[in-house]
Amino acid sequence: METAGLDAGLLSPVRAGSAVERATDDAAWLRALLDAEAALVRAQARLGVVPMEAAGMIGKVAGEDGLDLVSLARRSRETANPVVALVEDLTAAVAAVDADAAEYVHRGSTSQDIMDTAAMLVAHRAVGLILADLGRAAAAVARLAARHRDTLMPGRTLTQQAVPTTFGLKAAGWLHALMEAEERLRRVRLSLPAELGGAAGTLAGYVEYARIAAAPDPESYPERLMAAFAAEVGLAEPVVPWHVLRVPLADLAAALTVTSGVLGKIAVDVQSLSRTEVAEVAEPAAPGRGVSSAMPHKRNPVLATLVRSAALQVPMLAATLHQCMAAEDERPAGAWHAEWQPLRECLRLVGGAAAVTAELAEGLTAFPERMRANLELTGSLMVTERAAAVLAPALGKAAAKRLLARASAAAAATGRSVAEVLAEEPEASAHLTRGELAGLFDPAAYTGAAGTLVDRVLRWYEADGQ
Amino acid sequence: METAGLDAGLLSPVRAGSAVERATDDAAWLRALLDAEAALVRAQARLGVVPMEAAGMIGKVAGEDGLDLVSLARRSRETANPVVALVEDLTAAVAAVDADAAEYVHRGSTSQDIMDTAAMLVAHRAVGLILADLGRAAAAVARLAARHRDTLMPGRTLTQQAVPTTFGLKAAGWLHALMEAEERLRRVRLSLPAELGGAAGTLAGYVEYARIAAAPDPESYPERLMAAFAAEVGLAEPVVPWHVLRVPLADLAAALTVTSGVLGKIAVDVQSLSRTEVAEVAEPAAPGRGVSSAMPHKRNPVLATLVRSAALQVPMLAATLHQCMAAEDERPAGAWHAEWQPLRECLRLVGGAAAVTAELAEGLTAFPERMRANLELTGSLMVTERAAAVLAPALGKAAAKRLLARASAAAAATGRSVAEVLAEEPEASAHLTRGELAGLFDPAAYTGAAGTLVDRVLRWYEADGQ
Amino acid sequence: METAGLDAGLLSPVRAGSAVERATDDAAWLRALLDAEAALVRAQARLGVVPMEAAGMIGKVAGEDGLDLVSLARRSRETANPVVALVEDLTAAVAAVDADAAEYVHRGSTSQDIMDTAAMLVAHRAVGLILADLGRAAAAVARLAARHRDTLMPGRTLTQQAVPTTFGLKAAGWLHALMEAEERLRRVRLSLPAELGGAAGTLAGYVEYARIAAAPDPESYPERLMAAFAAEVGLAEPVVPWHVLRVPLADLAAALTVTSGVLGKIAVDVQSLSRTEVAEVAEPAAPGRGVSSAMPHKRNPVLATLVRSAALQVPMLAATLHQCMAAEDERPAGAWHAEWQPLRECLRLVGGAAAVTAELAEGLTAFPERMRANLELTGSLMVTERAAAVLAPALGKAAAKRLLARASAAAAATGRSVAEVLAEEPEASAHLTRGELAGLFDPAAYTGAAGTLVDRVLRWYEADGQ
Amino acid sequence: METAGLDAGLLSPVRAGSAVERATDDAAWLRALLDAEAALVRAQARLGVVPMEAAGMIGKVAGEDGLDLVSLARRSRETANPVVALVEDLTAAVAAVDADAAEYVHRGSTSQDIMDTAAMLVAHRAVGLILADLGRAAAAVARLAARHRDTLMPGRTLTQQAVPTTFGLKAAGWLHALMEAEERLRRVRLSLPAELGGAAGTLAGYVEYARIAAAPDPESYPERLMAAFAAEVGLAEPVVPWHVLRVPLADLAAALTVTSGVLGKIAVDVQSLSRTEVAEVAEPAAPGRGVSSAMPHKRNPVLATLVRSAALQVPMLAATLHQCMAAEDERPAGAWHAEWQPLRECLRLVGGAAAVTAELAEGLTAFPERMRANLELTGSLMVTERAAAVLAPALGKAAAKRLLARASAAAAATGRSVAEVLAEEPEASAHLTRGELAGLFDPAAYTGAAGTLVDRVLRWYEADGQ
Repeated sequence: METAGLDAGLLSPVRAGSAVERATDDAAWLRALLDAEAALVRAQARLGVVPMEAAGMIGKVAGEDGLDLVSLARRSRETANPVVALVEDLTAAVAAVDADAAEYVHRGSTSQDIMDTAAMLVAHRAVGLILADLGRAAAAVARLAARHRDTLMPGRTLTQQAVPTTFGLKAAGWLHALMEAEERLRRVRLSLPAELGGAAGTLAGYVEYARIAAAPDPESYPERLMAAFAAEVGLAEPVVPWHVLRVPLADLAAALTVTSGVLGKIAVDVQSLSRTEVAEVAEPAAPGRGVSSAMPHKRNPVLATLVRSAALQVPMLAATLHQCMAAEDERPAGAWHAEWQPLRECLRLVGGAAAVTAELAEGLTAFPERMRANLELTGSLMVTERAAAVLAPALGKAAAKRLLARASAAAAATGRSVAEVLAEEPEASAHLTRGELAGLFDPAAYTGAAGTLVDRVLRWYEADGQ
Repeated sequence: METAGLDAGLLSPVRAGSAVERATDDAAWLRALLDAEAALVRAQARLGVVPMEAAGMIGKVAGEDGLDLVSLARRSRETANPVVALVEDLTAAVAAVDADAAEYVHRGSTSQDIMDTAAMLVAHRAVGLILADLGRAAAAVARLAARHRDTLMPGRTLTQQAVPTTFGLKAAGWLHALMEAEERLRRVRLSLPAELGGAAGTLAGYVEYARIAAAPDPESYPERLMAAFAAEVGLAEPVVPWHVLRVPLADLAAALTVTSGVLGKIAVDVQSLSRTEVAEVAEPAAPGRGVSSAMPHKRNPVLATLVRSAALQVPMLAATLHQCMAAEDERPAGAWHAEWQPLRECLRLVGGAAAVTAELAEGLTAFPERMRANLELTGSLMVTERAAAVLAPALGKAAAKRLLARASAAAAATGRSVAEVLAEEPEASAHLTRGELAGLFDPAAYTGAAGTLVDRVLRWYEADGQ
Repeated sequence: METAGLDAGLLSPVRAGSAVERATDDAAWLRALLDAEAALVRAQARLGVVPMEAAGMIGKVAGEDGLDLVSLARRSRETANPVVALVEDLTAAVAAVDADAAEYVHRGSTSQDIMDTAAMLVAHRAVGLILADLGRAAAAVARLAARHRDTLMPGRTLTQQAVPTTFGLKAAGWLHALMEAEERLRRVRLSLPAELGGAAGTLAGYVEYARIAAAPDPESYPERLMAAFAAEVGLAEPVVPWHVLRVPLADLAAALTVTSGVLGKIAVDVQSLSRTEVAEVAEPAAPGRGVSSAMPHKRNPVLATLVRSAALQVPMLAATLHQCMAAEDERPAGAWHAEWQPLRECLRLVGGAAAVTAELAEGLTAFPERMRANLELTGSLMVTERAAAVLAPALGKAAAKRLLARASAAAAATGRSVAEVLAEEPEASAHLTRGELAGLFDPAAYTGAAGTLVDRVLRWYEADGQ
Repeated sequence: METAGLDAGLLSPVRAGSAVERATDDAAWLRALLDAEAALVRAQARLGVVPMEAAGMIGKVAGEDGLDLVSLARRSRETANPVVALVEDLTAAVAAVDADAAEYVHRGSTSQDIMDTAAMLVAHRAVGLILADLGRAAAAVARLAARHRDTLMPGRTLTQQAVPTTFGLKAAGWLHALMEAEERLRRVRLSLPAELGGAAGTLAGYVEYARIAAAPDPESYPERLMAAFAAEVGLAEPVVPWHVLRVPLADLAAALTVTSGVLGKIAVDVQSLSRTEVAEVAEPAAPGRGVSSAMPHKRNPVLATLVRSAALQVPMLAATLHQCMAAEDERPAGAWHAEWQPLRECLRLVGGAAAVTAELAEGLTAFPERMRANLELTGSLMVTERAAAVLAPALGKAAAKRLLARASAAAAATGRSVAEVLAEEPEASAHLTRGELAGLFDPAAYTGAAGTLVDRVLRWYEADGQ
């Protein structure tokens, strides 16, 4: 294979070889550009402005893969976008088989109508792939939440063991966040609009050709054309041309960056729990997976690493798209042109990360005994919050805290359990028996509403019909 | 006034002295923190876990403004958040009047429950102010769209006059974008959740205190407490604790950055049309407004400048919030703490920009005669697209384009109109009379669907009940 | 050509087909990775740790282009970086010709040593291309500054004509900024270090192999190996391994974003001056350049548009690289992996923008008569600052400003010149004759130090030996 | 204290109450603005354009703290910057004591000259504070590097224990990075230029006043004024006015974001090593430090958390400043105005983080025995890289790797050491005695060049005269 210009993902392993990489490469964009041209002429034909046969012929030629991508890309430098060159080549290709039909290519249109519509098509297809992978990830995470509903583990805040929690609650949190990301992407996908405005957003060129063709009902023609084009191309109908009103793109960027954040959250949790010294979860093993070029014994959490590498990039790419909303006039001199590559990267990174997360979630192993062992590290210290609560009514909140802090220090110094130390403290023994104290310091009895919350999220998930 | 630590907006004129500045300053956050503590204890009292009188007393003290903000801020360095110090001071203040009630302050709670809830309260209030200003801006822009429905002006793309459009369509575009921003902010505002999770998101502390108080129906207590707290504090009820599931904040950041982009779009348009050489619109004048320290004659478009200064900052602040979604464990060591100041800045900048845009839109003057005069600059060149469309069926698309390019060049060289030049070209005169050619080059007859689109957006706006 | 995975610049016209695109594509990175492996073994051979013949054979095989890029990219998903697969394939390729030599591939090394070194090699080559284009741009801009040293034009602030300036001073400003960018890139290019640390930055693997080979002077071996490797690969010698001390990459990102900002500044100026209503400069014409798909008459400033599209993207990509500096432990789980693609994009966008700016500067036409005509628009208003200065000593600053504001308003209302209006104002006529007033309002006499500043910058430029 | 508009750091604990917070608050900016006005008139007086007594009087009044900051901030909305209002108030204050002197306030100047110069003054002062704290941090880290030169600990890559390293090498890496940050900040601080350009960068106003005052040697006056102003205000002399050539600000932003990244690196390392399960370092304890509002037993690494919260914000703020480089015309309508608040935040966050890092480094405790215990977790697995190297010459690289992988798995399964397992494998025992094998797996003997690298960095540090 010729390698000049190839971006096979060597620098972006998170999406190397993924379906979304293929769905967003230059060839996929070219396909979407051609689909947009074909849909446009079909819509015009449907409304009587272009002969049906011409539309059919253009659609046929546009359906083929004969155009020279490299030539198109290079000629795009002359006009700052690839559509001018595309129209030339498509016109020539159609003319080669039907000179009359060639007259109807890109009729009344403008580069941005085609480019924006193609961008939405690419996004529509890519987000479809992403949603499928989020669905897989959610299903796998839901299984983890159910299976580990009551699996005790240390809750950690600011890097320190804090109070007990369950692995089920952690997984339920991931599930809820994945559902939220899915909901946002699904909504935004349905709203992705076709673009139709003509040279400066008035549709004047389209209207003029309809006038020349003496199409019926000229008054309603623009709105019917917008509807027909959207239907033909399979996107939402816009209210107004959005050449310089970029909310659709901004919404898409927002949904992608939110999704990226959710996947990033799962990744950092897996990494935290995978640390050699923690070892509470392990990524799915596969031959060659996680191998180090230097260290034969190592198994790196590579899937989480890949996901995190994406999550570190997407917010800034989305910010670029948001920055480009300040687009002057009827077409900006740069802000539009700066959108395409960041949009592709957002789609690819989120798509790659979603696929990797699905694989990660489906194969993630949790080690309950290790979680339990880690809980022992801080021993009963983990539930001093609870003991403070129990003693507060009797001693007052402040005095209870002071007592616990003193007992904790003594326990740490002597290696005894806090319960034992407290049993010898008159302030505590006056209110609680040795047995009560021991029970009070059982982490398993201090998971609060963890189970309830897991059930709540799973109910939600099942109600969502998944 | 003591000025140490003052941020009166000297470096951020877009929001200096605005309502949203006040609604987001340190004192407003302190108010929200105290409101959260008061709502929490009221909710606990409602469910029988805290005596009603204690809750009342805490609410009363929390309702006062006596805490030392500077001291709180400085002590926040010791714990990385201000809630620990706040709880100390609030407890002391309550104890000073009612030692028993003081026991119930912050009972079972954790810093992040209070801080997150306060952040949502501040956001709820600030977004309310923003929505009011967006509503004013939309109403003003709707009036501009209606009044200038058919006001002809040059459409401009890549800095060049392209084809005619109308000022009404431009304003309708702004209106549609403002409506979209409003819709997103309104939706996100309704969804802002209270936070309730306790030390590690299990609500264990709250549950423990309920157990100690022998509150009825312990099984359903966590869910009832979440609902009661949300109701007391006036925010949405969360499905799960979101200490480390930051979609709510990410959604808020997204809606704010989209709004910022919409306002920025209006600002760059006003600037483009305000240029000395264009002069098609003018900002509302006010004594001292737009004055230069050096040049007595100048009137700067300061309102648009202020709005744009905000739009240049918000996307990166939102990206910071999106970056922070990758929050490890049950509370991250930094990612949470990095959110507060960027969130405040987002709210302030968008709020300031919304207020300024409302003022700008309400006072914006358009100069139709100047728009018309600018159209004359490129004369009939602006509608060569149309002539190409008309001649294409007869000559073929390519030949028509070539003819027009030749005639345009001749017209530019000789100062004659393109219509006149074409009238002498056999290719054109064979198909069109001199009169038809003149009509063809009338910009007013080439605005396509501009009027239809204005009506469409205004219908939409009115249907939205505004 | 097979198009799957192709990124020929369809979405990034600013660099489509450019030298820097080629110098940074996957194949170029693969080349650099192989160069790093070859240099490493040569350095080890030079120090007596590897047989010279083995090093020669590895170098020979690494110098060929036979590896399967797509396979490498896809296998990189298993290890989160492409080096593990590369070492496998290179080892196999060497073994196919010399089984003994194959033993010495990647000896003692780690993926990051190779990947970081390759990244620096790619950057070194790409920045070399960028510097050449900046040099061309600077030379062209210097010519503009000299030629238009005294070409009068309106200075514009906040979109409004302010006081006169010269096109020469504008060009001199561009020149100075280009020189600053060049200086930063040149400095950073010289400092790009090779990476050599081994598995965790201790060079233990390298040291071990030296011990096994009984290489002389083991104490100084690590430092000699760092020096030899840097020399072999043609990069700077590092002080310490920088696997997780990313200042070199951060410096590179900073120099690139500063350069991008300088190019963006030139672009927005060209756009401002190219506006149809301003028309003071024009981009170089070329067949097909600036053509619109809809409007035959239009000539868009596409070069400036391309440059600006790059300038809108680079700051956020650089921020991603800066964000990744917080890399935990001896190799981070994601922060390293997130660097590669943003680095490539930075290099490509800045490289493309530099090449386009050189072309733009070399062909830029200024229209002095148009600049003069635009100055007439605000007529003598432009120099009211000057009149205020002259009258201030006599009238007081405030009174002078008031007088000028009044006279300006009267002049604007009546179409007379301010000088004429003032000549009838006793406050003015008491101090200045009609002739003095006319001279006072001549823009050509109010360019201050513009010429001096042009000379100053040109002196600086020439002294820089260019 | 009145709290309206107060930003005491409640939302930014990393800098609450710090010296840099004070040095960058609104009052500090006001002070710098007044210092700039005073320096300007002194420079003009020095060159004979303004009477010495007037300059003295203006300097005296400007040296006082009487202006109403809130009023200035609010009036800045009318002109989009605070200087117009400042000049009014300063003029009035001077006039109140000396009407003649008041005529000389802000003579020939423009808002941006004063605002940019003030920004550089604020930065100069703040960076001075930052450098002092970086110096403290470097000294403390150098002591750690020296003391722990040979303290063995696990090196960790992708969250997993990899091969041994030393705590000294980790600290030496921090030291080197701190030195690099210091060097960048010191260089940029020396280069911060005064701004002097007048209304549109030609210095025309200044030149005019010199002409009116018949100052000697008018030809060289502009350059002499630039030099004199820079000297008076204590900043570098600019080559050209940089109103719209923002490299100075971009360089400053770059140096600050690089510094932030270095501090962030130290913070994430401290957090990684502070984890409950790792516990190899501890932050300095202080009363109340690291206390949780819920959990009496916890000690959070709050200092590292504060530093990281800053490091998460600075890159995007710097990107905002870099984005603003694309400033059109002679003064942009927004891009300049968007710089001030992000610049302040950058300075504050980096300043706060530097101070906290100094405190952290000075009090950081390392636990060598705990590091050693953690090394035992993976036992001899950590040095399989070494064994692979030793066996490779005999067995071939691939066979050696396979052998080690097999032995590692057997060791992990049986709880025996890898050395023991290998001793029974003929492939190994043929080449190495049981004793050699045991020595081979001693982590302390496999730290490569760690000590050498520590010495190398310390030599560098000491040579730097610190």
